[in-house]
Amino acid sequence: MEISGSDPLPFDYLMVATGATPRLPGVSGEELEGIFFLRNVTDAIRIKSFIHERMARRAVVVGAGLVSLEACEAFRRLGLETTVIYRQDLPMRRWGEDFAEIILAELETNGVTFMADTSLEGFEPAPSGQIMVKTSSGALEADLVLIGIGVTPEVSLASQAGLNLGPTGAIAVNERLQTSVPFIYAAGDCCECFHRVSRKPVYAPLGDIANKQGRIAGANIGGQNISFPGIVGSICFKVFNLEVASTGLTEEEARNMGLETASATIQGVSKAHVFPGSGELHIRLVADTDSGRLLGAQAVGSDGVVSRINVLATGLSANLSLEELAYLDLAYAPPFSGAWDPIHIAAQKLLK
Amino acid sequence: MEISGSDPLPFDYLMVATGATPRLPGVSGEELEGIFFLRNVTDAIRIKSFIHERMARRAVVVGAGLVSLEACEAFRRLGLETTVIYRQDLPMRRWGEDFAEIILAELETNGVTFMADTSLEGFEPAPSGQIMVKTSSGALEADLVLIGIGVTPEVSLASQAGLNLGPTGAIAVNERLQTSVPFIYAAGDCCECFHRVSRKPVYAPLGDIANKQGRIAGANIGGQNISFPGIVGSICFKVFNLEVASTGLTEEEARNMGLETASATIQGVSKAHVFPGSGELHIRLVADTDSGRLLGAQAVGSDGVVSRINVLATGLSANLSLEELAYLDLAYAPPFSGAWDPIHIAAQKLLK
Repeated sequence: MEISGSDPLPFDYLMVATGATPRLPGVSGEELEGIFFLRNVTDAIRIKSFIHERMARRAVVVGAGLVSLEACEAFRRLGLETTVIYRQDLPMRRWGEDFAEIILAELETNGVTFMADTSLEGFEPAPSGQIMVKTSSGALEADLVLIGIGVTPEVSLASQAGLNLGPTGAIAVNERLQTSVPFIYAAGDCCECFHRVSRKPVYAPLGDIANKQGRIAGANIGGQNISFPGIVGSICFKVFNLEVASTGLTEEEARNMGLETASATIQGVSKAHVFPGSGELHIRLVADTDSGRLLGAQAVGSDGVVSRINVLATGLSANLSLEELAYLDLAYAPPFSGAWDPIHIAAQKLLK
Repeated sequence: MEISGSDPLPFDYLMVATGATPRLPGVSGEELEGIFFLRNVTDAIRIKSFIHERMARRAVVVGAGLVSLEACEAFRRLGLETTVIYRQDLPMRRWGEDFAEIILAELETNGVTFMADTSLEGFEPAPSGQIMVKTSSGALEADLVLIGIGVTPEVSLASQAGLNLGPTGAIAVNERLQTSVPFIYAAGDCCECFHRVSRKPVYAPLGDIANKQGRIAGANIGGQNISFPGIVGSICFKVFNLEVASTGLTEEEARNMGLETASATIQGVSKAHVFPGSGELHIRLVADTDSGRLLGAQAVGSDGVVSRINVLATGLSANLSLEELAYLDLAYAPPFSGAWDPIHIAAQKLLK
């Protein structure tokens, strides 16, 4: 069937998978050549080609989210001077000040300049042919700028079609991934998902969630009846030699929901103490003081961080108690952990 | 207080932590110099000193359990010719023939000779001063022999004291770690523990379990009231560049208990396909066809094996369904997994 742009196309079911678009800073000059966003592989190839063709030497990264920090590593590997401009005093404050300082130290150890408490004011072409980046802390020149200040769900089609948006501004879907119009489904970065710990819809534009939603929507359109149980908010990234991960709620998020919380933070080791290559690992567990249930965990360290967060994410999904976590039967051998895993140690500390 | 060997010592509580003793092969010559067991750091130091002092070049390992295979790696690192003598055709058959073949290949790739279907018949001093190892497949000379055919619980004191032994031959304890005499507790390799999947007492002499039992017994003696929920049978080891791990029951074990089972085996990758350093990973999930619940998992691969088994062990502890596992919210980033983790893929395959 040939389809032209103006032909109406009949359908029984419609799947909306319009994704997300990068958030714009809304400053003058943001359309200049050499200013990039990074959403997909095509963008990555374009940025890399630009670096090689222009023999770029200086990169400025606006924002300090996951994509921004991952890009810092890529830029440094290519030998670029790299500066991050960020409004707050520390990157990844969601992980807590102590962990954010570890992340900042990792950036600085690897040659990234972090301009804290700095807001972007605009861009101008520099006489040298470069870009002049104007900030609240002064101007700096760059061959290349990456803007990584988040994304917004692409909901224009959904809005025109009259689909309900949820409280986050993304398309509202039920657990079968149906929108407010039952024969229209949505999945991925354009829609919300249900957070099983906060019991609220959230906007979490991540690739693994998009995959799950797409599969479940497709199965339901195809005649099955599968529900997406939602997420517990697991997330991770690598920046240089540091693993950073979290699941569930931070203590601040839980308190903002009106919960009484307690937390325990420990420094552990990723393998047995005696084992070569064992690295430092910091874990914080957050629990609800009323029920004693786990609410979330954040971790940072050189090794074994994501694997611990995945165990805790599984515990969160299953509502495991802190008592269970304190004596959880994890596989033990010195190349992989101590006889007491950092998870056990943190849970026992929090139980006290 | 000074204690002499014959003085009776009054007590309110007694803690039995007599551990385990290496199983002897029961063949002639097993007391010869150069024949070792490996139970603790002192043993390891003795073996290493012997290798250096005698300039040992050839090691024979009797048995193919965890300790034996770990010792193979240590011997090869020290440059010894290393031969394993084993009664069965493959090492670690509990992991299934397909995975056992991967383990065998890893041994052979790293220069270990595996003598399959071979039983030990005895030892004799060789004219050269070495040890002649007589087997059902012929004799071979060694400078050093390591016997790793398992351990038996040390229960002589417990038996003399009239404590009940359990069906495994180890000391029976309740969930508070009390023996059949309520003011006598036992913990560690001398006693049983409760397997939460088979719902039976098992003998699992592993360091992490001993630590947990010791802590709980101590807490209860000290006036707290803590129960040990038991184990799900998580175990792991590293042999050369291979990680091997399992949790819960194998399909054979489950069938021997009279359960109807189904299993799915997949080959996945430890990180995203495109990511440098991503390794091969094989996972098998075993489920109960009646209830659909997970019964166990076995895995082998170059990377990320133990971390997956720990997630599945947590799922087993919490009785997570296969549906939950198929869409579990694990932290995703390309350095750590694909958007679909091998756990998701295996669970979805098993659901079909």
